[in-house]
Amino acid sequence: MKKSIKVFAPATVANVVCGFDILGFAVNEPGDELVMELTDKRGVKIISIEGDEGKLPLDPQKNTVSASVISLLKKLEREDLGINIQLKKKMPMGSGLGSSSASAVAGLFAANELLGQPLSKMELLPFAMEGEALACGHGHADNVAPALFGGFTLIKSYDPLEVIALPVPKLYCALLYPHVDVPTRDARQIIRSKVLLKDAVTQWGNIAGLISSLYTHDYDLLGRCLKDVIVEPIRSILIPEFDFMKAYAMENGALGFGISGSGPTVFSLYKSPDDGQKVITNLQRMLADKGIKSNIYLSEINETGPVILA
Amino acid sequence: MKKSIKVFAPATVANVVCGFDILGFAVNEPGDELVMELTDKRGVKIISIEGDEGKLPLDPQKNTVSASVISLLKKLEREDLGINIQLKKKMPMGSGLGSSSASAVAGLFAANELLGQPLSKMELLPFAMEGEALACGHGHADNVAPALFGGFTLIKSYDPLEVIALPVPKLYCALLYPHVDVPTRDARQIIRSKVLLKDAVTQWGNIAGLISSLYTHDYDLLGRCLKDVIVEPIRSILIPEFDFMKAYAMENGALGFGISGSGPTVFSLYKSPDDGQKVITNLQRMLADKGIKSNIYLSEINETGPVILA
Repeated sequence: MKKSIKVFAPATVANVVCGFDILGFAVNEPGDELVMELTDKRGVKIISIEGDEGKLPLDPQKNTVSASVISLLKKLEREDLGINIQLKKKMPMGSGLGSSSASAVAGLFAANELLGQPLSKMELLPFAMEGEALACGHGHADNVAPALFGGFTLIKSYDPLEVIALPVPKLYCALLYPHVDVPTRDARQIIRSKVLLKDAVTQWGNIAGLISSLYTHDYDLLGRCLKDVIVEPIRSILIPEFDFMKAYAMENGALGFGISGSGPTVFSLYKSPDDGQKVITNLQRMLADKGIKSNIYLSEINETGPVILA
Repeated sequence: MKKSIKVFAPATVANVVCGFDILGFAVNEPGDELVMELTDKRGVKIISIEGDEGKLPLDPQKNTVSASVISLLKKLEREDLGINIQLKKKMPMGSGLGSSSASAVAGLFAANELLGQPLSKMELLPFAMEGEALACGHGHADNVAPALFGGFTLIKSYDPLEVIALPVPKLYCALLYPHVDVPTRDARQIIRSKVLLKDAVTQWGNIAGLISSLYTHDYDLLGRCLKDVIVEPIRSILIPEFDFMKAYAMENGALGFGISGSGPTVFSLYKSPDDGQKVITNLQRMLADKGIKSNIYLSEINETGPVILA
């Protein structure tokens, strides 16, 4: 039995413009790195966290990376085990990139591997959602599911929970995280609880078209479906220069552009990595000129979910 | 150049439970039969209509079967032509089966064939929608598009008009048209103009899952996605014994059950034709016991749209 493992779990883009609360995909960068060790001392401990600027709790009951593992051990009746966790946040938190999901998935994946894979990914999902609920106050799956399964994932329903892995076309995702504060709870609260039926119809035409485009690898259709008439018009108000960034990306090769999760990170998709890199590099410079710092990332869509690094 | 043609155009099931206004499919039965002849006398004439109980107008400007052909000839600058139409309605009207769409598509398809296929099906679509608008007061495409293209069709958007042909799994559709009056306009009016966002999210999870199931031939998933939390709960009130019929069909092999278009016809889908035939035969008998007459039809999903019969 392996005593130690190092894993990576990916950041994720939830909603994907027209798939509010039901769609997400994972990226190869950024994400969380985690080292987990089996010890002789009963209990789950967080030994160290890097890259969180001291913001995350070290109390294992309060951190998603460990709380989900504690639930898992309870379920497996292995609370006798000792587990030490070293977490390296290689991604921003509170940015709309599924930071807490990445941590929960990293912890669960590592523990499940150390224990000889007693559970399938589908069986791990409820534990990851529990971790997500701890961090965000709600148990949505649109970050944890893609973080766990990789690729594009559809949350077909919550009751019962049903997740569908969708085909993954060759695509590059450019991410830009502007350093402005948009708490998830606020971003949810400004969304109206009722929508016009005609807008809902437009939205389900787009989500239906998007799903079709993933199966047929029709990039142009995919781009035409990345439209959101319901959530983006409201949430984008919280993101500085959103309309400008969107127009710039769309004029420079993006298939689509939108808010990642509840923001403030914005994402755009490209057939060419060069186009994506150019757009976010230039946008980063333009934002800096306006006094807004940002992080940028470019990677392919992650197809695997978490991976073993060592 | 052919002087005469006989064609069939299929009835269609619009909405398909979770795809309100964006989804439809065609069936092999029932439908319209039409004989079209080129004559030496300029102008489009309706020579005869059978099966309409005298309800449809013989004035070519007012009947969808001819009005759409008149528009087509105008567009092609062939108003010099003389065309005689004999229409045989082999399907009920005002039943939610896309009767006016079948007529418009039959007329357009026949004329386009007689003229040597100057237009593609995609190019014929706007003319068919025009015919539909004449009959229903609105230019929806969720009946005309499947009638024209066959199979499952997605109306991805109206502005611009974009129709996507979806894969067609081997499925049997059972239709039951109870002889009660539910005018399309009334059926639309009782739908609320605003819906709960959480219901819209449920709906787009279902439509997304349904599209996925068509590509993967996952019949169980297809069945699980045939749920409508927005329109069916309201429209079903207008259809006598709806809940009873649905429960009976679902207990006897149906993958899903719902309202065809705006009703009152109900449809259900089956892997086995025997199951479908049994369900509608029994339901027809049970409705008759309650004093409600009905028509029933069982056929495969139509994959081709209109066909030349002679």
